[in-house]
Amino acid sequence: MPSDHILSYEAGTVLTVDLEALVANWRSLQAVCGEAECGAVVKADAYGLGLGPVVTALAAAGCKTFFVGHVFEGRDVRTLAPEATIYVLNGLRPRTGHIFADHALRPVLCSVPDMEDFGQFCATSGRRWPDGSKLKAGLHLDIGLNRLGLGPYDLERADHLAPLFDVTLVLGELARTEDICRAERQIEVFDRMRERFPGCPASIANSAALFRDETPLYDLVRAGYALYGGNPVPGRANPMRPVVKLEAQIIALRILEPGARVGDSPGWRAGGPRRIAMIAAGLGDGIPAAFTDNPRAAGGIAIVQGKPCPYVGTIGMDHSVLDVTDATYLERGEWVELIGKRLQIDDFAARAGRSGPEVLVHLGRRCYRRYQKI
Amino acid sequence: MPSDHILSYEAGTVLTVDLEALVANWRSLQAVCGEAECGAVVKADAYGLGLGPVVTALAAAGCKTFFVGHVFEGRDVRTLAPEATIYVLNGLRPRTGHIFADHALRPVLCSVPDMEDFGQFCATSGRRWPDGSKLKAGLHLDIGLNRLGLGPYDLERADHLAPLFDVTLVLGELARTEDICRAERQIEVFDRMRERFPGCPASIANSAALFRDETPLYDLVRAGYALYGGNPVPGRANPMRPVVKLEAQIIALRILEPGARVGDSPGWRAGGPRRIAMIAAGLGDGIPAAFTDNPRAAGGIAIVQGKPCPYVGTIGMDHSVLDVTDATYLERGEWVELIGKRLQIDDFAARAGRSGPEVLVHLGRRCYRRYQKI
Repeated sequence: MPSDHILSYEAGTVLTVDLEALVANWRSLQAVCGEAECGAVVKADAYGLGLGPVVTALAAAGCKTFFVGHVFEGRDVRTLAPEATIYVLNGLRPRTGHIFADHALRPVLCSVPDMEDFGQFCATSGRRWPDGSKLKAGLHLDIGLNRLGLGPYDLERADHLAPLFDVTLVLGELARTEDICRAERQIEVFDRMRERFPGCPASIANSAALFRDETPLYDLVRAGYALYGGNPVPGRANPMRPVVKLEAQIIALRILEPGARVGDSPGWRAGGPRRIAMIAAGLGDGIPAAFTDNPRAAGGIAIVQGKPCPYVGTIGMDHSVLDVTDATYLERGEWVELIGKRLQIDDFAARAGRSGPEVLVHLGRRCYRRYQKI
Repeated sequence: MPSDHILSYEAGTVLTVDLEALVANWRSLQAVCGEAECGAVVKADAYGLGLGPVVTALAAAGCKTFFVGHVFEGRDVRTLAPEATIYVLNGLRPRTGHIFADHALRPVLCSVPDMEDFGQFCATSGRRWPDGSKLKAGLHLDIGLNRLGLGPYDLERADHLAPLFDVTLVLGELARTEDICRAERQIEVFDRMRERFPGCPASIANSAALFRDETPLYDLVRAGYALYGGNPVPGRANPMRPVVKLEAQIIALRILEPGARVGDSPGWRAGGPRRIAMIAAGLGDGIPAAFTDNPRAAGGIAIVQGKPCPYVGTIGMDHSVLDVTDATYLERGEWVELIGKRLQIDDFAARAGRSGPEVLVHLGRRCYRRYQKI
């Protein structure tokens, strides 16, 4: 269901995306990058925040390189940023070579069959880059994650294929680890493998690596979750500006008698007279079920009139319940803050025991989305 | 990002929705309903499966009543099913009365302010139902869940408002509980409260209640998750036909040496030489992060060439990794089954320690969606 036909006052939830903060985040990451270029990862509809506005804002600010997961996402970025360099991280699906050529997209080839497939397409289709040169691609080098990427032996095997296209980027992926020795080993492997591509730009760092002194940045940094306000340095103060605000409308309010339960929930009982608010946001809006009755996490809260108010009872598909006893006068139709400056996405996710990117990507589906300062 | 512009062969995931199975499920639930009518709950884009095809198929099969969460969802159902009765379960947002009148939607009023708001709109706007009669609404009666709904005292207070519109349904919500006494108390309360509305149709049962002998069905049943293949009787054999198949494309394959890890994951190591497949489905496609490194759940599996193959390593935004050692010959570009007849939605969700509806509603966002037999 496209959210662009929802009116603000009939929505259950409003997702506000602060493009100024997003651009400020990109600029501050670019400043940390120094000589290296800061590219933007905009996969999965820009982590659910809307590919169109996000790419348009970043391109206008000077971001030149975008990373997506799939070729159809690349097509969308191309229409938004005609001049941009666009890499497709999942590589090449069989029989999609022409789409890369049509839209000047660069697959990040991540296996020998990927290279064979793209090489064959380049050799037999006669397709060229818009300026008449060879088609372009990145190469994903496996530096120890054992996931996507070419190993040293693969590069050997595929040596005859590389001249069929221009390799414009060699890319590696660092483990998310505090183990400096492991990171150093990864970088050694990367440097050894890229000797085969003298002068070719390289990329290894995501926004987390950008804040680790010991990681070299090479030519291009891939900034993703941090652009959207996620904390790239978990456990330390978040250097990024929050980008997202999620608000929900109050459907109804009521007073509970001591001992009353809410919904089916076996876990929670009103410890005294409590006031609760039903809000028009639930599972279908990305509110995690794990916000309540979850002994392994802190439990969800929302900010109501500046006060943190816990979720109680089970989370429904269309609504949830907050204990708003600590807030003062509230009315049906009022909006409460589920995510924002005081309760940022990482905290929101952690309270459900989930990862920030996973929660973020599920937020934007059934909301009224607007782009303004938060 | 609208999924309707993704081509099948460039997609990472393909979601197949079996409308014949959906309709068969509705018919089998209608058969269990006997004299009562079986309505369909199609909130949240029909649990993520596509409101358009789902409503069109159910309406063609004879389903006359639809339930949605929000008024904007009601508007969409109206364009798909011009003759249908449509109830909006979250009630009335302030200033949305005219939308209900424009599209002949019925709010399920769930508080005194809701009744006041709708009553005032009816009294002052001069708007009428298409046949010239009064506008119509349902009333949500609170029968002990302490969530949405009018209590006995509320009905007293709002008595003067009810004549301003036609009350065409009184609705209650049963706890999901095995406690028969609690259910009986709920039904007693419901019967007492609805005495105020003699002759008015009533609804209390969802698909789970439909399979409990002791629950009276009244006039209208609200079938939701079970329509889409979810098991209405957890712990017993699922009486519903599976409706959903989710497949993902293999991006790359590789052999791991004994002891190798995948991605950042600290938890899993190859116990011997293992073959793994990277598939183009990740967090952004609704694959739960909790499929791996989750000591509290069984862990995710996919069906590859008829064999269950576990997820290993962390789930990425765009891809995941399967241990496919037990499958035989596999190629890049091949499709593997993540959800289907052998691995139904409830099992898929349970393997992540999550609820089926929550997982289901997050699946359909970045896939190529098609409607055919699974």
